[in-house]
Amino acid sequence: MIACTTVTDTRALAESLLADIREATRDGLGVTRESYGKGENTALRILADKADELDLRHETDRAGNLWLSLPEDQRDAPYLVIGSHADSVPQGGNFDGLAGIVAGMLILVGLRGRHEDAPPVRVLALRGEESAWYGKAYLGSLSLLGKLPAATLARPRRDGLDTLSEAMTRCGADVAAIGRGEALIDIADIAAYLEVHIEQGPIMVNRGWPVALVTGIRGNVRHNLIRCIGESGHSGAVPRWLRKDALLAVAELLSRMDEHWRVLLQMGMDMVMTTGICSTSAQSHAVSVIPGEVAFSFEVRSQDTQTLERFYTLMREECAAIERARNVRFEFDDRLFTEPAIMDAGWLDRMEAVAAPGDKLERIASGAGHDAAVFANAGVPSGMVFIRNENGSHNPHEAMDIDDFLAGVALLQRSMLSV
Amino acid sequence: MIACTTVTDTRALAESLLADIREATRDGLGVTRESYGKGENTALRILADKADELDLRHETDRAGNLWLSLPEDQRDAPYLVIGSHADSVPQGGNFDGLAGIVAGMLILVGLRGRHEDAPPVRVLALRGEESAWYGKAYLGSLSLLGKLPAATLARPRRDGLDTLSEAMTRCGADVAAIGRGEALIDIADIAAYLEVHIEQGPIMVNRGWPVALVTGIRGNVRHNLIRCIGESGHSGAVPRWLRKDALLAVAELLSRMDEHWRVLLQMGMDMVMTTGICSTSAQSHAVSVIPGEVAFSFEVRSQDTQTLERFYTLMREECAAIERARNVRFEFDDRLFTEPAIMDAGWLDRMEAVAAPGDKLERIASGAGHDAAVFANAGVPSGMVFIRNENGSHNPHEAMDIDDFLAGVALLQRSMLSV
Repeated sequence: MIACTTVTDTRALAESLLADIREATRDGLGVTRESYGKGENTALRILADKADELDLRHETDRAGNLWLSLPEDQRDAPYLVIGSHADSVPQGGNFDGLAGIVAGMLILVGLRGRHEDAPPVRVLALRGEESAWYGKAYLGSLSLLGKLPAATLARPRRDGLDTLSEAMTRCGADVAAIGRGEALIDIADIAAYLEVHIEQGPIMVNRGWPVALVTGIRGNVRHNLIRCIGESGHSGAVPRWLRKDALLAVAELLSRMDEHWRVLLQMGMDMVMTTGICSTSAQSHAVSVIPGEVAFSFEVRSQDTQTLERFYTLMREECAAIERARNVRFEFDDRLFTEPAIMDAGWLDRMEAVAAPGDKLERIASGAGHDAAVFANAGVPSGMVFIRNENGSHNPHEAMDIDDFLAGVALLQRSMLSV
Repeated sequence: MIACTTVTDTRALAESLLADIREATRDGLGVTRESYGKGENTALRILADKADELDLRHETDRAGNLWLSLPEDQRDAPYLVIGSHADSVPQGGNFDGLAGIVAGMLILVGLRGRHEDAPPVRVLALRGEESAWYGKAYLGSLSLLGKLPAATLARPRRDGLDTLSEAMTRCGADVAAIGRGEALIDIADIAAYLEVHIEQGPIMVNRGWPVALVTGIRGNVRHNLIRCIGESGHSGAVPRWLRKDALLAVAELLSRMDEHWRVLLQMGMDMVMTTGICSTSAQSHAVSVIPGEVAFSFEVRSQDTQTLERFYTLMREECAAIERARNVRFEFDDRLFTEPAIMDAGWLDRMEAVAAPGDKLERIASGAGHDAAVFANAGVPSGMVFIRNENGSHNPHEAMDIDDFLAGVALLQRSMLSV
């Protein structure tokens, strides 16, 4: 059977697939698709069933990820991969991940009858992208590329009742090979990794952009815990010049860094800075006691490693200056570093070139992580198309308009036909 | 019997009284003298016994406070009161309060044989100055002046096992009269209230001042809880211009107020500012989540009501400016106000005038509260002499040098003789 490729049928296929999987994985207001667990299995099974119905080939790799392709396309590698993930956070939204797999399926169907106009295409429904379940992201893509740290396999699930190794084994993954760091695929066979994903921030809604091109996926430098240590004292009896107020020291640090951030944005740099946790000591603080200690986190994200490193150094320098000025001391836990990933310039240009006349395609950085970062950092030319989405992500209120989605899919399809 | 007045005997009397009461109320490293309770009763009994030994008159008022005077001094009011408190915080230091009572006793003894050179003097050993036991300070002095709010009598002790009313009754206080707000003394009879007390901050140690004159007792304006409400969001995906970061808003507020404070000190104003409590929401904060809410306290203390009010208004104006600039909202709990107390200019000048030649007496504000504030705000001319003390107060490590103490006592005695 030859699948339909009219606009109406493409829309109907997308809507029914998204609705079927939402219904089958519903959990309260949202959906729950556990990494290497129940909801993810359900989503992958529905995708495989739909592939059968549409006469697409489907197979499962040794990391448990699902691959779809056109059976009539017998050409050799290199091939393009259109991928995204099938899992979700607990009570998350339906579109984060799933939309990118559905996009790939629509494109496969759309290539039917003219697949030789584009390079070979394979659709990859990845498992385990969300860190919410095992405290580690990109489980399916890292396993596939032989890059999952072996220790990750022993991580407990968030409820403590299972380990990743047990869950992966139940899903048919070759945990022994993954533990050895064996690549389960020849990366040289992949010409490019392409992903459609909802934006997880509010920029596109605010700017009025239905579709945008992703320039890179921000890496980050992070301290989960910095302690500023001063000296507590009577709030009435200690004058300003004898205080070692840990809170005013942290307030000054954050205000200085916030101001630097503002200036660096003006100068065109890509970055965001967040202190998500900040607290005086719950054991000993009081309204009339000068705070002797404050604990806080610090995170900077950027597409650019140099920006990350320099802003981090600037933060440490400001800490040193504040230590001298305010007689306090900063203590840092281990610094955590996640490498940024740059999307391929050739694919960015190609996607821009095939935009409909008059549609100016904007470029934005992805603040959240995506499997595309794993492929890009493994040397695979990678590209991402963001779809406008209201209300952020990781919550049941994600709201993607199907017209925006179809515009993004069409853009990606045209760019593949232009290769 | 006529008590000795030589320097050596005065020192020996002070040392033995302080040592006896420390020993009798010892609790671990420090002392514990519960307001209207065991340790305070012990201290007052030792003081009364010593009064008997020294042939001083002692009597107890209807609030349970102990009065000492020279039996040979038969002159009518008005009289000078030398007062301080006999209680301590749990495991506190020996000198906070007690030193002022001992000072009064030394002065009484010192006036023996020449009491007509000074106005009549009465020494007042007050109960219940520390708020640590019933959450309310100045219990003895407020009761004496008919100013204890009736509701205070129902307050539970910190261990919840007793009420103030029960404790006061056991100590012989006329709780009915106190509850009616009846003045237990004719305030017009008091010519002045004078108090010797250790400094509870580090200024005098740092400046090298053994003795200093107190200009006033700071009042304060306080909010126990201000909430800054912004909007939480993904730390990677929300750009600066769309953030409503509650923590950066509070950091900016505190940094601005800290800078205003620095400038106002330069301009000669008396004030201290403290945010003792500040925290992102422990239920929902995370390293990678923009803080949507921060809870914090705010306190400003000053000797000057106008400074308090204006700095408070400035703080509210900065909150309003930050609300507009950062799209956050500040919510305030009830504002609490404690009136400052001004020490009497005549007594300040008199004490300065009798300082030993070459001893420049410095003037400082008291950041902590004292019974002198109760008398001053009731219209009694009041004066305070601070004694240098290491390691703050309300802890077992208070360290007052006996030489400093005797210098302060001598100063007060000379000033009384100059009236």
